[in-house]
Amino acid sequence: MGKQDKEFVKEITPRSQDYSQWYLDVVLKAQMMDYAPVKGCMVIRPYGYALWENMQQGLDRRIKDTGHQNAYFPLFIPESLLQKEADHVEGFAPEVAWVTHGGNEKLTERLVVRPTSETIICEMYSRWIQSYRDLPVLINQWCNVVRWEKVTRPFLRTTEFLWQEGHTAHRNEEEAEEETRKMLEVYRDFVENDLAVPVICGQKTEKEKFAGALRTYSIEALMSDGKALQAGTSHNLGTHFAKVFDITYLDSDGELKYVWQTSWGVTTRLIGAIIMVHGDDRGLMLPPKVAPIQAILIPITPKKARKQVLSKAAEIFAVLKESGLRIEMDDREEYSPGWKFNEWEMKGVPLRIELGPRDLEAGQAVLVRRDNGEKETVALSELTQYIPVLLEKIQTNMYQKAKQFMEENTHRTDDYQEFKQIMEEKRGFLVAGWCGCVECENAVKEETKATIRNIPFHLQQEDPGRCIYCGQDGKHLVIFARAY
Amino acid sequence: MGKQDKEFVKEITPRSQDYSQWYLDVVLKAQMMDYAPVKGCMVIRPYGYALWENMQQGLDRRIKDTGHQNAYFPLFIPESLLQKEADHVEGFAPEVAWVTHGGNEKLTERLVVRPTSETIICEMYSRWIQSYRDLPVLINQWCNVVRWEKVTRPFLRTTEFLWQEGHTAHRNEEEAEEETRKMLEVYRDFVENDLAVPVICGQKTEKEKFAGALRTYSIEALMSDGKALQAGTSHNLGTHFAKVFDITYLDSDGELKYVWQTSWGVTTRLIGAIIMVHGDDRGLMLPPKVAPIQAILIPITPKKARKQVLSKAAEIFAVLKESGLRIEMDDREEYSPGWKFNEWEMKGVPLRIELGPRDLEAGQAVLVRRDNGEKETVALSELTQYIPVLLEKIQTNMYQKAKQFMEENTHRTDDYQEFKQIMEEKRGFLVAGWCGCVECENAVKEETKATIRNIPFHLQQEDPGRCIYCGQDGKHLVIFARAY
Repeated sequence: MGKQDKEFVKEITPRSQDYSQWYLDVVLKAQMMDYAPVKGCMVIRPYGYALWENMQQGLDRRIKDTGHQNAYFPLFIPESLLQKEADHVEGFAPEVAWVTHGGNEKLTERLVVRPTSETIICEMYSRWIQSYRDLPVLINQWCNVVRWEKVTRPFLRTTEFLWQEGHTAHRNEEEAEEETRKMLEVYRDFVENDLAVPVICGQKTEKEKFAGALRTYSIEALMSDGKALQAGTSHNLGTHFAKVFDITYLDSDGELKYVWQTSWGVTTRLIGAIIMVHGDDRGLMLPPKVAPIQAILIPITPKKARKQVLSKAAEIFAVLKESGLRIEMDDREEYSPGWKFNEWEMKGVPLRIELGPRDLEAGQAVLVRRDNGEKETVALSELTQYIPVLLEKIQTNMYQKAKQFMEENTHRTDDYQEFKQIMEEKRGFLVAGWCGCVECENAVKEETKATIRNIPFHLQQEDPGRCIYCGQDGKHLVIFARAY
Repeated sequence: MGKQDKEFVKEITPRSQDYSQWYLDVVLKAQMMDYAPVKGCMVIRPYGYALWENMQQGLDRRIKDTGHQNAYFPLFIPESLLQKEADHVEGFAPEVAWVTHGGNEKLTERLVVRPTSETIICEMYSRWIQSYRDLPVLINQWCNVVRWEKVTRPFLRTTEFLWQEGHTAHRNEEEAEEETRKMLEVYRDFVENDLAVPVICGQKTEKEKFAGALRTYSIEALMSDGKALQAGTSHNLGTHFAKVFDITYLDSDGELKYVWQTSWGVTTRLIGAIIMVHGDDRGLMLPPKVAPIQAILIPITPKKARKQVLSKAAEIFAVLKESGLRIEMDDREEYSPGWKFNEWEMKGVPLRIELGPRDLEAGQAVLVRRDNGEKETVALSELTQYIPVLLEKIQTNMYQKAKQFMEENTHRTDDYQEFKQIMEEKRGFLVAGWCGCVECENAVKEETKATIRNIPFHLQQEDPGRCIYCGQDGKHLVIFARAY
């Protein structure tokens, strides 16, 4: 690494020094986002937005493959609608933005900028649903939502963010529960396979469930600083909303019944998960399946060979682009190859293709992986076939590495002193027994800042032992962690 | 047509009886949208939204092919930013929604819900642009915007609507003008080829240009009631915004210069254009390229042959779906074939495929076109190959018909009495000379409700004759029309 290159990397604070600053350095420097001149809001710059578009594509396909259709509901919700479901309004009213004037007139009823759309969608469902033949209703919406946050952090918590929210209505509990679980599984599949982020699936506690839900399920991921991030939630809303919004249907048995509902969502905070699970001190590391640029071609052009190399590079670039690869070529003259290597590593491009005069003579190119730095030379004639295979390998390796990290940072204990020590020194996921009462849950949170992330499905059959806090009989094995 | 079928069609008011009611009947009955419980807002239902998604895909591809990238800027704009450009604030301030409270606190500065994003984007560009090497900046955004409207109509004018807005910055006037014209041409290409809606390209008058622009260009379409609809606009913003937002760059000659900017947008009102250009008294008629459902397969199933027909229909359906056709099958038992024919005609599906026992025996299916009602029988073995060809024909025919209508309803006159009579009796596009002064423009509007839609490019070389109002020397040939 030359002097110039070191300086470059120095612009990113090492994770070990200040993780939070590292994160901000990376998102700004890689031009994923910029701060907006509105408190708590951000601009998603083209590089960050292209990542989001690729994520949307992978998730939207899965949402449609499971029978859902997209629609669009209004941004504004009348205050009276928000207030219909008691738990829901209690959960959201303190953090909404209020529209009070339209044009030059004061509104007779204040409007809420949607923090989530259950209420306005329920209002419509009560009109649209009459008979069992109208069910199930399977609708999803991609949109922006606003929650007035005190402390914000790019992608992880901002006043406005982008997300999808699914809202479905069913004939009975069984179908609603099946849908809720199915969509959690869709999220798991998407996050693990497309984003290479391993997650723990489970149920939220009563305290942590969605405001207005019967049951909430979540997928929880572990960031490289040992803190958890809730990566997606799926709610069985029961008949709570149906009862206050009067969403009934005439069943085939002639009886009028309330529908059972679900809702589920993931947000742009998944971008934060990608950054914190895969990123390192050199910057971003993006999974090939969603990376805006999968491969960067860098021609090495000493003066004498410049023309020749550029001409061949352009040819290779065209062929690879035509093959469907998301590739860019960096032939800027004002930067050295070393500078470019760092730049594209920092931007997390999974694969670098170097092409110099000597490579040309040998009819080959040098491929360098972002995930492990491995170099290999590949014949030019084989690039089109080989690169997709290599990208698959990178994708798999990124997932495996993250999975291994999660496993190595998942600890199990039934001793509260050890629990506190781990939470202080190592963090990570802490598997422990819990009696099921909110007092213990609150006490642990107060004393260790750790919350119950969820009650994992995969530990349901195991003996929960004793409650980590009160020592009474455990009801569940749960995962504690400090969380974003 | 049986009695049941007539009743069905009766639910849509004929266009000749009440065009406005026809429009509302169609959008509601076809489940394109529904009214929301918020003044002036609507819900875009899955069938309407699927159309919008297909439109987005076709336009987004063109926007990216011309070198633009998508990004996302905040929904909220601080009042002080909106007020920086004088013409801009004058144009938009009267019609914006104001956020005054966040959570339980009153904001120190009111926020505007974006009516368009020039100001907040300029604020960012002033940070991002330093050198000529940073130019051009070519960014587009798909989002929702809000304009507080007094009188609203689904898709055509609603308080909230969806759109894309492109915002670019360039080194000089020439590049900015080239971009402005290029994007107008992108719109023309998209609207004419994908939506089968012919348009007139031209320049807006000073009176009608965008608030803050140097020059505005538009594409104007003619609806089947003879009223015009502005289908897209592209603005050369000059250096107006650059000067107030201080967007400067160091040019290669060492001088600090203001950037030249453009912005351009189309909205969900294009859905209204599709409805009003192609729809008829039976309902919607959707162009194959963007129709959510391109073909509807209806098995005709007398009791005896039911099982056999359904099994073959399922097979054909699977093959056609696999081939990439957007096809659905309507095998509901509770409705008659005649009812279904009407239903899917009303929903504007370009092609109906009928499959009955006799067709099966003959190894064929009956294809019925929505655009002209023509029926033909086609061998089952040829469906996969033939249907895409037929859809192309339908697309072309729809465009040709609309183009012919536009031509037949474009009148030219230099006599103001005749002008008024045409505008009263036939409407349509009225080509006439104009002296270029706003007084004549205003007078014509007041007396005939017709505005100058644009100064068409294709008439620039012709002699404008005399001004239709004052009789002085004409400066331009322009198109007058009453407009949505």
